[in-house]
Amino acid sequence: MKLATLKDGSPDGVLSVVDQAGARFIEVGEVPTLQSLMDDWNAGQAALRKAQARLAAGEGEPLTSDRIAAPLPRAWQWLDGSAFSTHGDLMQVAFGHDPIETDRPLMYQGMSDRFFGPTDDIPLPTTDHGIDFEGEFGVIVDHVPMGTNAADAMKHIRLIVQINDWSLRAIAPVEMKTGFGWVQAKPACSMAPFAVTPDELGDAWQNGRAHLDLAIDWNGNRFGSANGGEMAFGFHELVAHAALTRDLVAGTVIGSGTVSNRNYADVGSSCISEVRAIEIIAHGAPKTPFMAFGDCIRMVGRAKDGSERHCQMNCIG
Amino acid sequence: MKLATLKDGSPDGVLSVVDQAGARFIEVGEVPTLQSLMDDWNAGQAALRKAQARLAAGEGEPLTSDRIAAPLPRAWQWLDGSAFSTHGDLMQVAFGHDPIETDRPLMYQGMSDRFFGPTDDIPLPTTDHGIDFEGEFGVIVDHVPMGTNAADAMKHIRLIVQINDWSLRAIAPVEMKTGFGWVQAKPACSMAPFAVTPDELGDAWQNGRAHLDLAIDWNGNRFGSANGGEMAFGFHELVAHAALTRDLVAGTVIGSGTVSNRNYADVGSSCISEVRAIEIIAHGAPKTPFMAFGDCIRMVGRAKDGSERHCQMNCIG
Repeated sequence: MKLATLKDGSPDGVLSVVDQAGARFIEVGEVPTLQSLMDDWNAGQAALRKAQARLAAGEGEPLTSDRIAAPLPRAWQWLDGSAFSTHGDLMQVAFGHDPIETDRPLMYQGMSDRFFGPTDDIPLPTTDHGIDFEGEFGVIVDHVPMGTNAADAMKHIRLIVQINDWSLRAIAPVEMKTGFGWVQAKPACSMAPFAVTPDELGDAWQNGRAHLDLAIDWNGNRFGSANGGEMAFGFHELVAHAALTRDLVAGTVIGSGTVSNRNYADVGSSCISEVRAIEIIAHGAPKTPFMAFGDCIRMVGRAKDGSERHCQMNCIG
Repeated sequence: MKLATLKDGSPDGVLSVVDQAGARFIEVGEVPTLQSLMDDWNAGQAALRKAQARLAAGEGEPLTSDRIAAPLPRAWQWLDGSAFSTHGDLMQVAFGHDPIETDRPLMYQGMSDRFFGPTDDIPLPTTDHGIDFEGEFGVIVDHVPMGTNAADAMKHIRLIVQINDWSLRAIAPVEMKTGFGWVQAKPACSMAPFAVTPDELGDAWQNGRAHLDLAIDWNGNRFGSANGGEMAFGFHELVAHAALTRDLVAGTVIGSGTVSNRNYADVGSSCISEVRAIEIIAHGAPKTPFMAFGDCIRMVGRAKDGSERHCQMNCIG
């Protein structure tokens, strides 16, 4: 099942089922928003299947990118992991941080009241903040009771999304040093158009990981194409970590952190900061600048057969 | 204006105006929830004043504590400061942290999808986590545009609340050390019954600070009565800090952090951890234990004339 949310001027938009090609949609109607679907996943399934059957019969309206909001345009909770250890290792070596000595998943609570749509411009105050993208995958869960273990957490993973976690690199280390995590350094994220059920990924969904290549273009130039399968913790483990001392509200979004692979020399990276870290390690200084106003980032999650599962293109300014 | 939210089985409850004594209420009706009021503060004023006039004329139903939810039972955003420098200094000395070298406000993003009501029991998994309370004041803002300065931020502070920021002290330092801030260590907070407009505090609202004594009783024994006026940054400065790189969604709650005073030897503290820090500094070891299941915490914000502005009593278990 492939879901999208269409803009209608309201904060939550309109939940729609999309055909396999992402070319046509049908509004679900009975389940008005993705949040309402997450609130009672099982109750909403009949309506989704009905819409899907109509799409299969050739019904539906053409889907145009300007109408597409983030699948969840606002969420009650956004918890972002940092589950790719290559990324953490590179950042630590390059920037001379103390190693983060932990065998637990890394996770911060981010702003969730707004997720930009896949073609929305991103308003940011100044390039002095060191504007960067972070390509990642994420999951959306239904209600997860406090204390749920990782095996049970897997059943609560209802949808997979692709996220651009915009980051401000001049502020991030200042906030990180306080131990309080990031506020100013982490403005609203963007989401790719489609939220898909795990079965849509086929073989690419394994052990709570999305084994998709995340192809990223910066102003039309290929920047990286790292694979989402290399997470040190699966999404189910991130969900269980988050639920240790709280119920996770239905519609909680959990992120993987910047996709990063051991063979970064071959596949590239998913954020500028990691490339600068690699440059520092190799040459003693970074040479890739951060983003300028007007720059555009395209991110595409691709299965082994080359089919696109998620795609977004945002420009800042 | 004194506002409360009444439980009706829905997640957002029913917005009500309460009389001065906190004894009677009238449902606002036209403005169904506090979130809807925050979404358009000015548009809601006429309905609030009408309810207030009816209360003044002796109308209204008796208000009983079991019906009272948190003023905002869930919010799109909760950002908690740590604006009392005495608290930070004590914690740093006692626990041998590196000093947090910053002239910026300290702030983390916390879970906002649930605020417990003033008499709700608090479900937590185990006392092994070191269960602690944190008494603080907070404000609720309407929509704050990105880049709003502190002077302008003052105008967006519509309501003042009192919060118990439940904290798990066995986890907090582990998470803090990662630099990612707190997730597991900060479960849902509780809120005292009434959200009041700044004018309700009279002289006690000065320079963006709530100069109220926060009397805290732990199982009926006075624990502390520190004053909220000693913030190193006023709430307007915390709001401006939060809004540097994002619009603050209407209904964002901003917290002061644990209320703490220089004369802590006289007035006591607002969390157990600070008392343990004082014990460590004085005697080399803490002696006050953290909370046990069944323990109850009462917090009352009191003006100079002794009148109560905020009060809550929660038990854990």
